[in-house]
Amino acid sequence: MINTLYLPELREMLVEKDQDSLQEFCTALHPARTAEFMEGLTPEEVWAVLQYADLSVRTEIFSFFELPFQVDIIEAHSPAEVAELVADMSADDRVDLLADIEDDFSDQILALLPTEERRDVLRLSEHAEGTAGAIMTTEMARLPEELTVREALDEISRQAEELETIYYLYVVDENDNLHGVVSTRQLITALVKPELRLKDIMETEIIHVSDSDDQEDVLRKMADYDLIAIPVVDEELRLVGIITHDDILDVVVEEAAEDAYRSAAVEPLEETYMQTPLLILSWKRGVWLIVLFLGAIFTAFALKHYDAELDNYKWLVLFIPLVISTGGNTGNQSATLVITALNKEEVSVDQWVHVLQRELVMGLVLGGGLAVLGFLTALFIAPDIISACIIPITILLVVISGTLIGSTLPLIFEKIGLDPALMSNPFVAGIIDFLGIVIYMTVALLLLGKAPVEETSQLLHLPLIQTFSVG
Amino acid sequence: MINTLYLPELREMLVEKDQDSLQEFCTALHPARTAEFMEGLTPEEVWAVLQYADLSVRTEIFSFFELPFQVDIIEAHSPAEVAELVADMSADDRVDLLADIEDDFSDQILALLPTEERRDVLRLSEHAEGTAGAIMTTEMARLPEELTVREALDEISRQAEELETIYYLYVVDENDNLHGVVSTRQLITALVKPELRLKDIMETEIIHVSDSDDQEDVLRKMADYDLIAIPVVDEELRLVGIITHDDILDVVVEEAAEDAYRSAAVEPLEETYMQTPLLILSWKRGVWLIVLFLGAIFTAFALKHYDAELDNYKWLVLFIPLVISTGGNTGNQSATLVITALNKEEVSVDQWVHVLQRELVMGLVLGGGLAVLGFLTALFIAPDIISACIIPITILLVVISGTLIGSTLPLIFEKIGLDPALMSNPFVAGIIDFLGIVIYMTVALLLLGKAPVEETSQLLHLPLIQTFSVG
Repeated sequence: MINTLYLPELREMLVEKDQDSLQEFCTALHPARTAEFMEGLTPEEVWAVLQYADLSVRTEIFSFFELPFQVDIIEAHSPAEVAELVADMSADDRVDLLADIEDDFSDQILALLPTEERRDVLRLSEHAEGTAGAIMTTEMARLPEELTVREALDEISRQAEELETIYYLYVVDENDNLHGVVSTRQLITALVKPELRLKDIMETEIIHVSDSDDQEDVLRKMADYDLIAIPVVDEELRLVGIITHDDILDVVVEEAAEDAYRSAAVEPLEETYMQTPLLILSWKRGVWLIVLFLGAIFTAFALKHYDAELDNYKWLVLFIPLVISTGGNTGNQSATLVITALNKEEVSVDQWVHVLQRELVMGLVLGGGLAVLGFLTALFIAPDIISACIIPITILLVVISGTLIGSTLPLIFEKIGLDPALMSNPFVAGIIDFLGIVIYMTVALLLLGKAPVEETSQLLHLPLIQTFSVG
Repeated sequence: MINTLYLPELREMLVEKDQDSLQEFCTALHPARTAEFMEGLTPEEVWAVLQYADLSVRTEIFSFFELPFQVDIIEAHSPAEVAELVADMSADDRVDLLADIEDDFSDQILALLPTEERRDVLRLSEHAEGTAGAIMTTEMARLPEELTVREALDEISRQAEELETIYYLYVVDENDNLHGVVSTRQLITALVKPELRLKDIMETEIIHVSDSDDQEDVLRKMADYDLIAIPVVDEELRLVGIITHDDILDVVVEEAAEDAYRSAAVEPLEETYMQTPLLILSWKRGVWLIVLFLGAIFTAFALKHYDAELDNYKWLVLFIPLVISTGGNTGNQSATLVITALNKEEVSVDQWVHVLQRELVMGLVLGGGLAVLGFLTALFIAPDIISACIIPITILLVVISGTLIGSTLPLIFEKIGLDPALMSNPFVAGIIDFLGIVIYMTVALLLLGKAPVEETSQLLHLPLIQTFSVG
């Protein structure tokens, strides 16, 4: 959301080169807010305003812009102009920015970065998207275990400017192998005995992740252990980075959006809804709509298979949407409940028997209730009581199928290592649409008998139509 | 998930009263893991194990149990036995626990708590669920502004044990009005000049929330400003609590699950899927199924309205599921995209014109593509080319309705202050089912003309049936 309130004032200050006001603007507010106020400016104007701030403030404000806007600002200037700011960014933000800038341009910026920052970028960009390595940063406090509490405090007070978080200190040996963790809290509590060394107070049972771990596993660990930051180690167990609470909050929001998209059969977006080009959005929606459409064609052919029955008992047609939507809705509920429970680790695949038992009971209860409603409705439309019974029996069976299929499919997907969210509505609904038609027509056949051959059909036709138009 | 691996060993240690091993068990691991290992024990066994740990470790392990298990453990013992542990819990966890314990029992525990803790519980439990006040804790560092950096550090080092977070210090006056915030990071950086006072280094532009603010607003602010903790003030702007990063992570996970439930027409669960009693689960699912079912009855009556047309052109029946599922799927996609964008604040209600423009274009593109597929399918089933054209025209119109309705309804809900997630699938799908039938039949009427009266219908019947069974 763009806050346009102060844009005219800002522009006027720029025209007048009003140094005092612009410096005041850059520093008076929290950098996140300053960034928000500038979102309506052009990349050139933003850059002009930022020149009135110190490098560290400038970088901070810049880091709070959305990534696409950061890219616009950088690409509107020469590599030489922006290199200083890029070098000052935190390692994880920098690597995200450079990944989104055109290759030629980012190579030129990279060449202008100090050696250490350049190596950082190359190391971080090796990691696959969605892994711990891709979201970690390399700016953490590494200290030797022989340091005293007082020395450690002095050391991080010197380094504080460059570190992403100073709330945990990582105790490493000369090979960067992680031996312990000390929280700033422990350090401050230990100040009463300043002769203590880090090795005396460090935790040696270290909660960590591997750089190739999925970001969802990182999230789970940080949430389970209430951590502000978690250390990341490589294959040789060397400390290579940390992931902090704000990065993980972004991951949660991203994963939740991803699940929401999947539940609506949209391929997850990489950018915001408004920023995604319509052509890409069409593809991300269209690809699944086509799959679902092809599935729905099966339902059409299933119905075609029963044309003789539908012709004879045409009031059955009226309940088609009701039968399939009830099945779809119940299946969707079960799928969502199981997917959410799997996501929150409340349920594991091993508990499938228990899950299916619960869903069977739910199917009986919900199906039974809806069957009563369906029977009452059918009494208004069906020609006789026997025929009306088709509706409640069908609804009961369809609802039970819905709960069982809706809960089984995500469990199977989880078991075979696929994202269970893929099996959310509307795929479950598509499968139950088809099954619903088959159940419906089979019940009708069993209760009303096989449809007579075509000649007889003509004879039976008249009275039924009459009942129909009267009912 | 219950880890049953060490349960036999644990039980054996309990029987043998093996003090060394049990003390080792309580302290060797991170308390979150220790809690996990004990989840398979009975409340009595857990309590017996916990007696081998110091009070602070005992409380920490206990705090990592799921709330319902905490309740079981507490209710299995007398108020006098558990009061010490409850008094030692963090203020926010304690109030959640007491709220879930039977009233009589929790009153007895409350009476046994020290005055300050008792007042805390009463103050915290005043706040409505879902507000900042309900998730905040009262254990934060409040310091006067005249303190020097060194004095402040000594002070929090003394208090550290009792505080929920020491990463921000809140500078208040004698009335508890919040004047500034100092991060431990700033404090540690300022150590090089220990004569500085808090008032010299504190931030006076304070990002805060009010105790009546919705927890979603808290989440947004903490995410926007990358905060580890946010101060909560009351109406008179007095500091009454803080909300920390781990509490807010719980809120995100909870809100995401709530949106997922809503998107599947399930009333949000208060407990886990497995712990929710089947009767409550039936109600949370059944209530919406009934609403949707009653909606689907409208679709049945809409179809009934067109019985003459369906009777004459009975191949139209075959495409009913396809038409309504395509409309529902498209509407569901649009609704989910808009709801997610609203949740992430990527879109505001003011941008509705822009959103509808985008969705109109999407409707034309997606509807056009699916119309081609639909036309190809219809060629196999419809009796002639003109009739076959009904399907693509209907699909195009239904898909456009889907994108427009799916995107408009969440915007309207947001505008009138309701949760837009309520307007997610399957409600959008239900509305579009009904509309889809009306569009379908209207297009058919316009292309094929009004259905002849019944006598004529009989004459027309035979050849159509033949085409039908041949096609």
